[in-house]
Amino acid sequence: MEWWESISEDMLRQHFRAIGHIGLNPKTNGYTRPSYSPLESDALNYFREYARCLGLEAFPDEMCNLIIIKRGKTSARKIIIGSHCDSVANGGNYDGTAGVAAGISILEAIQDAGVTPELDIQVMGLRAEESQWFGTTYIGSRGALGLLTPEDLEKRRKDSGTTLKEYLLNMGVDTDALRRGVPTIPKENVECYIEAHIEQHTALLEKGVPVGIVTAIRGNKRHREIEFRGEYAHSGATPMDKRQDAVLAFAETAEKMDVQCRKYNEQELDLVFAFGEAHTDSNLHGITKVPGYFRAVLDIRSTHRQTLNDFYEFFRNVAGVACRRRNVELNLEGFFESQPAVMDEKIVSSLARAAGEIGVPYHYMISGAGHDAAVFANAGIPSTMVFFRHNGISHSPKEEFEYESGVLGTKAIAKLIDSYC
Amino acid sequence: MEWWESISEDMLRQHFRAIGHIGLNPKTNGYTRPSYSPLESDALNYFREYARCLGLEAFPDEMCNLIIIKRGKTSARKIIIGSHCDSVANGGNYDGTAGVAAGISILEAIQDAGVTPELDIQVMGLRAEESQWFGTTYIGSRGALGLLTPEDLEKRRKDSGTTLKEYLLNMGVDTDALRRGVPTIPKENVECYIEAHIEQHTALLEKGVPVGIVTAIRGNKRHREIEFRGEYAHSGATPMDKRQDAVLAFAETAEKMDVQCRKYNEQELDLVFAFGEAHTDSNLHGITKVPGYFRAVLDIRSTHRQTLNDFYEFFRNVAGVACRRRNVELNLEGFFESQPAVMDEKIVSSLARAAGEIGVPYHYMISGAGHDAAVFANAGIPSTMVFFRHNGISHSPKEEFEYESGVLGTKAIAKLIDSYC
Repeated sequence: MEWWESISEDMLRQHFRAIGHIGLNPKTNGYTRPSYSPLESDALNYFREYARCLGLEAFPDEMCNLIIIKRGKTSARKIIIGSHCDSVANGGNYDGTAGVAAGISILEAIQDAGVTPELDIQVMGLRAEESQWFGTTYIGSRGALGLLTPEDLEKRRKDSGTTLKEYLLNMGVDTDALRRGVPTIPKENVECYIEAHIEQHTALLEKGVPVGIVTAIRGNKRHREIEFRGEYAHSGATPMDKRQDAVLAFAETAEKMDVQCRKYNEQELDLVFAFGEAHTDSNLHGITKVPGYFRAVLDIRSTHRQTLNDFYEFFRNVAGVACRRRNVELNLEGFFESQPAVMDEKIVSSLARAAGEIGVPYHYMISGAGHDAAVFANAGIPSTMVFFRHNGISHSPKEEFEYESGVLGTKAIAKLIDSYC
Repeated sequence: MEWWESISEDMLRQHFRAIGHIGLNPKTNGYTRPSYSPLESDALNYFREYARCLGLEAFPDEMCNLIIIKRGKTSARKIIIGSHCDSVANGGNYDGTAGVAAGISILEAIQDAGVTPELDIQVMGLRAEESQWFGTTYIGSRGALGLLTPEDLEKRRKDSGTTLKEYLLNMGVDTDALRRGVPTIPKENVECYIEAHIEQHTALLEKGVPVGIVTAIRGNKRHREIEFRGEYAHSGATPMDKRQDAVLAFAETAEKMDVQCRKYNEQELDLVFAFGEAHTDSNLHGITKVPGYFRAVLDIRSTHRQTLNDFYEFFRNVAGVACRRRNVELNLEGFFESQPAVMDEKIVSSLARAAGEIGVPYHYMISGAGHDAAVFANAGIPSTMVFFRHNGISHSPKEEFEYESGVLGTKAIAKLIDSYC
């Protein structure tokens, strides 16, 4: 029996059970584990203690990312299997965490078998992949790769005003070192970075294939704060041509973007967008008022840099036209972006070969969602991702996990690692 | 000197000062006097006591509307000068109240002069003209005219769940009589109904004319609850054609209505509309989510019944198309409407003649907003309205009053009444 054959559904299940109370809201069945919150720490601490019980080294790095190491014959080189344990507000138990559970299951199998690989196998429980509190993503991976900016450190929680820097200082992080951009992962020592994740959509379900191997990750351009500032007025007494209706300025913008996005998609150009939050001011709005204020957030994504740039410009133009037509002021704030990332051809084909060798059906696909793997790839580290088929729902209490696919995907990664044993 | 010449700015000013603390939010400078709340009662009670000090009869009717009567030589017939004292949330001090202040100033002048008119002159402080708590308008006037429905009585405050009926019962109203639709104003006894109000827009300002005489009042069709129910999903991972985006379904609907409304307006057809409240669910929305839910309220208004009906059908059709295209469920709830009303030609021209006789410049106009006068007119009572020029802003803390116009408009009504003295 090969060492990786011991990877089982029970191995994965025990981890989801153990952390299944952390951040759970029993009313919604949703999970909320904000980045750098005690709840995120609780989940990472569980994995740290589990790893120590297996006899593995487990400790926080300078970003408080969790590092678990199975030492190889040399520690001069390593393979990293990474993912995150934080969640969006009212999300699920599996997003991100599945990748950490997969990684530690691989280490458990190799440890149990007494195998010593040629190089270090390192599992990273990365901090702050989601943007719930600080409105910026990939904090843990960017910090570890020396890519966090001084502006990032000043990002504030909207509800409390506490900055990311204050959270990091409280956890003992040397934020001066972060400012200097000192990487804690020397990229030349990394053989490859592999991230496992639930697919977050239904492509694998529809194709009847348990595992996805990712060839590219969508980048995005986002605004956390788009304000349409018109003027409140009486909704009966004011003629249409005298109104400064913020809702209609937004509606024209969103509808024209939707029509344009369909044109891109018809040309097979990868592009999606959403206004995930969009609302009038509940303190001032009313059925007899022309709405004088509207706020929205925007998320545009594509695997093609040019498409992303072009559609973002289209948005700015149509929003400008819609607002000028109605004498509405447009404020675009809270911009952030991440670049599209191409996965490493060599590691992608090695992973596919490994899957094929052990009879795991797979499908090449892009990742619509962003992931830490994009940060590693754009930092020059050969990277790819494995997607597990599931019910297709994520960032939601309805998110489910499919253990069969989880085991097959984890074994495919293990088989690739076996080629280094 | 004629009796109506004593009507002055000071007369009006004292009333706004006296009630200027009722429902005031010092932070926003806005006024909130919800229908059938103690704050509305405070304002009406002030006018009741003021009238009693003048030696007038003042008492509540069966709807707790305030009735103030200057007795004439006969009480078999009467002229009613009516308006309301409730407000929208965070509105101004003058909307509605200006009409009650004008009415009582006329009674004060006639009383001071010791004149006895041919018929009763009655000022009504009508309850619940706005729809803040119960989402239905003209409760006081409809109740007095026997037009309140059993469904109206079951309308609930959204925040507390208390019904209108419970409020009425607490105030000693015989709600069984309301159910039987017994009018407390026998319309055959009413010579005419006149309502004074701030214009709520800038037409008089732009024309440089202090007084408007209203020839028609816009009716409306409204929904207090329009729900677009899609499905939350990951805003990166889900392809556009698999999304059930509630925000984009709304945006298509609103934008197409706006384009269509412009076409109506270009054909000189009277039509306005607004989605005064429009929002995603703050408990579930987020920048990385496809918004699975959107709620809006809708207010469509026109002086033309056919235009109102046609545009409402247009709304239902485009909303249906926008939702079917995206697999979004559409729920249209909380519908209510009021019919457009034509003012009485004879009373309109009598009022214009009276204004002309005392040199008050006036302008014929329509009322974009709805008013109790529409209820009286549609109940068969000859009605009209007088508008006072002001800064054009209403339903807002920025609402202002122009005393010069207030006095001129009030004198025009008084001069009309003088023809019955």
